[in-house]
Amino acid sequence: MPAVNEQMMGLGNVRSAIRDLFEYGLKRKAEIGAENVFDYSLGNPSVPAPRELDEKIAELALGGNSVALHGYTSAAGAQDVREAVAEDINRRFGAGVKASDIYMTCGAAASLTISLRAITCPGDEIIGVAPFFPEYRVFAETQGAVFRTVPADEKEFQIDFDALEAILNPHTKGIIINSPNNPSGAVLSRANVDRLTGLLRKKEQEYGTQIFLICDEPYRELVYDDIEVPYMINEYDDTLVCYSFSKSLSLPGERIGYIVVSNRMKNAGDVFAAVAGAGRGLGYVCAPSMMQRVIRSMLGKTSDIGVYRLNRDLLYDALTEYGYECVHPDGAFYLFVKTPGGDAKAFCEKAKDYELLLVPSDSFGVGGYARLSYCVSTDMVKRSLPAFRRLIEDWKKECVSRDGSQ
Amino acid sequence: MPAVNEQMMGLGNVRSAIRDLFEYGLKRKAEIGAENVFDYSLGNPSVPAPRELDEKIAELALGGNSVALHGYTSAAGAQDVREAVAEDINRRFGAGVKASDIYMTCGAAASLTISLRAITCPGDEIIGVAPFFPEYRVFAETQGAVFRTVPADEKEFQIDFDALEAILNPHTKGIIINSPNNPSGAVLSRANVDRLTGLLRKKEQEYGTQIFLICDEPYRELVYDDIEVPYMINEYDDTLVCYSFSKSLSLPGERIGYIVVSNRMKNAGDVFAAVAGAGRGLGYVCAPSMMQRVIRSMLGKTSDIGVYRLNRDLLYDALTEYGYECVHPDGAFYLFVKTPGGDAKAFCEKAKDYELLLVPSDSFGVGGYARLSYCVSTDMVKRSLPAFRRLIEDWKKECVSRDGSQ
Repeated sequence: MPAVNEQMMGLGNVRSAIRDLFEYGLKRKAEIGAENVFDYSLGNPSVPAPRELDEKIAELALGGNSVALHGYTSAAGAQDVREAVAEDINRRFGAGVKASDIYMTCGAAASLTISLRAITCPGDEIIGVAPFFPEYRVFAETQGAVFRTVPADEKEFQIDFDALEAILNPHTKGIIINSPNNPSGAVLSRANVDRLTGLLRKKEQEYGTQIFLICDEPYRELVYDDIEVPYMINEYDDTLVCYSFSKSLSLPGERIGYIVVSNRMKNAGDVFAAVAGAGRGLGYVCAPSMMQRVIRSMLGKTSDIGVYRLNRDLLYDALTEYGYECVHPDGAFYLFVKTPGGDAKAFCEKAKDYELLLVPSDSFGVGGYARLSYCVSTDMVKRSLPAFRRLIEDWKKECVSRDGSQ
Repeated sequence: MPAVNEQMMGLGNVRSAIRDLFEYGLKRKAEIGAENVFDYSLGNPSVPAPRELDEKIAELALGGNSVALHGYTSAAGAQDVREAVAEDINRRFGAGVKASDIYMTCGAAASLTISLRAITCPGDEIIGVAPFFPEYRVFAETQGAVFRTVPADEKEFQIDFDALEAILNPHTKGIIINSPNNPSGAVLSRANVDRLTGLLRKKEQEYGTQIFLICDEPYRELVYDDIEVPYMINEYDDTLVCYSFSKSLSLPGERIGYIVVSNRMKNAGDVFAAVAGAGRGLGYVCAPSMMQRVIRSMLGKTSDIGVYRLNRDLLYDALTEYGYECVHPDGAFYLFVKTPGGDAKAFCEKAKDYELLLVPSDSFGVGGYARLSYCVSTDMVKRSLPAFRRLIEDWKKECVSRDGSQ
């Protein structure tokens, strides 16, 4: 009998590439000064939460109702908060969501682990579409599911439907969709939403099973042009929406979000019960009580995300001018840049010589790219541009000389 | 293939006896007025958090450092918070704990699920000593462990060592100890701590395994007399302490606590890694960031728990005078009263006729008792005493007449 759970020990010991780079960045900043390191490693919002939000926190804390403010809420969340969240969703998307469909959570990661635990039995399959947030695999496997991946559509970072169709089978319990996408910034188009839901419906009928669409939506509000992001509850009955306020309100450390179990699924009551049971069994007693009240007062509002748009435009325009290849990102705060020559790790290693911290794409399920998190100061973006130019010039020369010498 | 995970659906559908009674109480209060219902059902602190704590929240929120305040911390917690927690533990218990032994969590339930997931593989056994918090079973079984129970020592609510010894075996991975205890209020005596650790060490040697002591300690500070509560890290090497600030600082809804992995265990590094891995895999990205800073400033302080002591004395003195039998509770805020005749459910049902909401003991792993949570207003306690007197008088008459008619 092993002394500990070795799967968990592995998860604790093997650190993510993103975190490793972040730690390298801290060290490097201490050595040469923070202003000299161009850190594009972490998706930690750089824009503060709205002032109004922090004022609301202070107002609640000093409001003299400490017992209720910090007391347990119902496991699914305070009733008034659930009602307000449902109303906000309906106002924006006309989705016919009820308060009783909402389960408040400790952020998107909790939304995902609870949803995955609720719908899968050990051995059931969950599909991720590359490129995907690496923790999807961790979350699915820890819940006992098998994580299977659809290779990336490298033309537009939409969905390779032939590959998806080939992987679907009677053991498929769900597919995780993340639009706007981390790391590519791509938004799933209306046409591809229709194609996806059509395919899933066809397969549900063929297999006589339910295939849940799990929509991981922390970036829903981070869309910079007049781009439609279809609300999937309106598109497909067997949908669970996993939402977080981390990015839209710059609250990633506070762990606050929710799950919507679509009331249009035929067994919505059972699925909601399983969500509640999974939340209970995983140790989530309730979402942080004060923060529930805070987000209630902030529904429909966001931090000043104009900064991210400015950064995107600056970076996209400059990098494509310098010769980088990159799909134009419509949302989130990531740029997914092709690494010339294809070896993402080597390229990102080389980038460190220019004090550029970029995440190699391999852990996102696709090789040959570097992820830039542009939730950083615009000043840093501007100062980093010459480094990007020198990096690609030098790298291309090296590639040529290496190829020539073979 | 079932459409959802039926174990989770069951957990979501089968509500706890405590929650059911709480909901009944809400309904009843609406019917006859809150002041006429004597609600002893829930362990929700009635004393507010210290004013200083709420002022700290406001100070942090208005401090103009929103990005750092609400940003991700390291998964194990902010370094300065971990250092302060370790220092506080060492100041009070001289336990030689280091910051690197501390893993900040979303409260005691998270501390337990993470710890249990970290140390068990599917099928490993976890022991609970009756009477125990019913969620222990849920937490252990959701992590894939087998939950086994040691029957209660009904003399003093310490440990029935013969029964414990009989249940220990090479598959035993851990035993959960909760002192002061929910629901009995008992504190494990020094002599029994020594006997327990001696037995576990002997069995570890005999089996060549590790048997972890998992100390669930949300009530550590709630001790009303000059009673010693040994700090188990000083007593037994293979100890994990699961702590929560819910009760000591009246913050149950905020979900903030920590795990200490004793650095005296031979594989402390592996166990800490498994804890970190389990936290990651279960979806706990970090403990709520602002609340980490808040509790850092409140270490060593508590809410005004004098009220609980007053309630305990009032209730214990009155109830024993009326003829109730009850072990004198040294800690927590629970009184565990013997139900004359032995049928706890029938007795608690009868108590409703007197507007007394008491939790039957069956879900705590022992029959024949009612739990009173006396974290209520002292005024309510005083007003409820006549109802307790009438209840036992009428109930004893009914028992006699029922027995006579057989």
